Amino acid sequence: MEYKFSDRVSNLKPSAIREIFKYAADPSVVSLSAGNPSPDAFPTKEIAEISAKVLAEDPISVLQYSVSEGYAPLRKHLAEYMKKEHNTGSDNDDILITTGAQQIMDLCSKALVNEGEVVICEAPSFIGSLNTFRSYNAKLVGVPVEPDGMNTEKLEEALKANPNAKLIYTIPNFQNPSGVTMSLEKRKKVYELAKKYGVLIIEDNPYGDLRYSGEYVPNIKSLDTDGIVIYAGSFSKVISPGMRVAYTIAPKPIFQKLVVCKQGNDVHTNIWSQYVCDEFITKYDFNAHLARLREIYTKKASFCMELLDKYCAPKITYHKIDGGLFIWCDLPEDIDMPKFCRELVLKKVCVVPGNAFLTDENETCHSFRINFSTPTDEQLERGIKILGEYANSL
Amino acid sequence: MEYKFSDRVSNLKPSAIREIFKYAADPSVVSLSAGNPSPDAFPTKEIAEISAKVLAEDPISVLQYSVSEGYAPLRKHLAEYMKKEHNTGSDNDDILITTGAQQIMDLCSKALVNEGEVVICEAPSFIGSLNTFRSYNAKLVGVPVEPDGMNTEKLEEALKANPNAKLIYTIPNFQNPSGVTMSLEKRKKVYELAKKYGVLIIEDNPYGDLRYSGEYVPNIKSLDTDGIVIYAGSFSKVISPGMRVAYTIAPKPIFQKLVVCKQGNDVHTNIWSQYVCDEFITKYDFNAHLARLREIYTKKASFCMELLDKYCAPKITYHKIDGGLFIWCDLPEDIDMPKFCRELVLKKVCVVPGNAFLTDENETCHSFRINFSTPTDEQLERGIKILGEYANSL
Repeated sequence: MEYKFSDRVSNLKPSAIREIFKYAADPSVVSLSAGNPSPDAFPTKEIAEISAKVLAEDPISVLQYSVSEGYAPLRKHLAEYMKKEHNTGSDNDDILITTGAQQIMDLCSKALVNEGEVVICEAPSFIGSLNTFRSYNAKLVGVPVEPDGMNTEKLEEALKANPNAKLIYTIPNFQNPSGVTMSLEKRKKVYELAKKYGVLIIEDNPYGDLRYSGEYVPNIKSLDTDGIVIYAGSFSKVISPGMRVAYTIAPKPIFQKLVVCKQGNDVHTNIWSQYVCDEFITKYDFNAHLARLREIYTKKASFCMELLDKYCAPKITYHKIDGGLFIWCDLPEDIDMPKFCRELVLKKVCVVPGNAFLTDENETCHSFRINFSTPTDEQLERGIKILGEYANSL
Repeated sequence: MEYKFSDRVSNLKPSAIREIFKYAADPSVVSLSAGNPSPDAFPTKEIAEISAKVLAEDPISVLQYSVSEGYAPLRKHLAEYMKKEHNTGSDNDDILITTGAQQIMDLCSKALVNEGEVVICEAPSFIGSLNTFRSYNAKLVGVPVEPDGMNTEKLEEALKANPNAKLIYTIPNFQNPSGVTMSLEKRKKVYELAKKYGVLIIEDNPYGDLRYSGEYVPNIKSLDTDGIVIYAGSFSKVISPGMRVAYTIAPKPIFQKLVVCKQGNDVHTNIWSQYVCDEFITKYDFNAHLARLREIYTKKASFCMELLDKYCAPKITYHKIDGGLFIWCDLPEDIDMPKFCRELVLKKVCVVPGNAFLTDENETCHSFRINFSTPTDEQLERGIKILGEYANSL
């Protein structure tokens, strides 16, 4: 049988990152390619306690079918928390629990983007989201990321050139992969442009709670008086990614359509894990937990940047970060970056080639992404030493 | 802001069943409209034991990111189990863990069906799957269900009339909503026709393990020497629906494309619950658990049919079932079925109007679906008494 796939997916390839994970599974390889939380960052004791409690107290509700909107107490508590801590969400919004933030991209694509319509992304941007948009045959248009976020002149050019643009996709805090945080001024400008051109914004904020230095910048969603921002939050980086619990705060008419799409997608998100997240954020000191995570990652990020200074200069330069899990590194233009990354795997170190994060993977790129949250300090030192020595030998 | 939704979803409505659930949430209403497993059917003690064990032994693996294909031991054990018990799956197939079987329909639609292409369904069929196909702008063509399954002459007519048909969607065992089981002869015929017309089959089998009478009929997938059947299995009816763990056994090239689509959909299924399902089917006596479920449901199904005999004749007739969770009931043609169902809600009983399960909801229909797994015996008696008295008063 010769299989005929749909037009949407016939050119879709497995995520380059997930392919690299296959090398990374070799225990002799130092993987700087992941985006996993540190093993030290999981509240495992609390999760085990809560799980035992909810299974003892109300096992049927925890294991039975539930509603597509998500567990009502979790939705209520999250809405209150996001309003109080981040002025995010209003009476015109509602909150939907999703199976990871990846599902938010899927539901928004399905509900809002016809085949051939445009999604404007940062270039570079998170490959997982780009692939989801691609899987709906959306056309991706990249806007360069500068040290203070998206180039807003280029954004306006892209909006003018693409009247069929439906979404602007942005990760304003500690962007994956560039590490860049968008300034408040640019957040306001992106919002204004979206409003002017009648385009919705997806604000993807998985790393917002992981700030190690610099000043807090308000969410774009906190500026949303016109109902044009869809906010994506997640427990993956702050409780557990394996549970797949995330949430979107969206204008009510969009929320309602996303709920219908979610019914057809997976009916509802694992309800047991929703109970666990709800108890964790309400009965435990969630803000103290976040402070502990910041402490862990501040150390790891500083250590990683010290190692880059020590081993990688002058051939590899990197962009200092204020938060998140990733550091973006540049090679000189005379080094073939994809070849460099392939050779590096043979030296038992994995990084992610930067072109994986571009809207056009064939574009020339001299950067790569490293992650410091998953490896141990020993692995970080070993990996970055090899990385630096190799680059400086070329 | 006036929101413009995609063409795929602009006509998509919330599932009629899930809307009915809102009335059903009123505790004074007897809901015969759900499809939830009986509260007695959950292995809650075992799930709590396993969960505590895996969280103690290997918390990071249970809570960390995992692979899109699913937890490798679970995939291996399921493949072995399905081969041994049901001769289902071959070396040409692979097995993907999904977030409920609903996600299988989503991934197959995305990977295999262009907008405007045809999915052939049983009429009536499971509304959740129909809505997923609709959400990809597939055109649904219904083929009537007879007491021994799909009308295969009409199926061939539909295949001839729709050269752009991509999938035949069938629930061969104790079909939702009709309760019908497809004969072996018809399974072979459906397979032959799919092969002849170059169309793939999705065999959705959530209720296969819940047979209360009659003889076992082999899965269509067990006949699949040509790589044209995608099998959908689920733990929702036999362990817990709240966990959202299901699986598809599909020809390898299709499996690979479904994995890529799943990356963009939700990255992977809740890994904690995958660990729990794996331990439950390997370290506990899964077949004894299934036998216990059959015992519970055989009693409930018989009791429900006795009540229908006692209270509902002559106005309501019903189709005897050999398994599953649903009974399909017919009203005389002079009774307006949708009105009947609406009036019934005011009398505090909920059933699902049969037209909700048709490819065209506006078609005339004199049937409705009832469920006997969720209500208690007391609720069943109270609900069916009201149902029968009301029908016989008309």
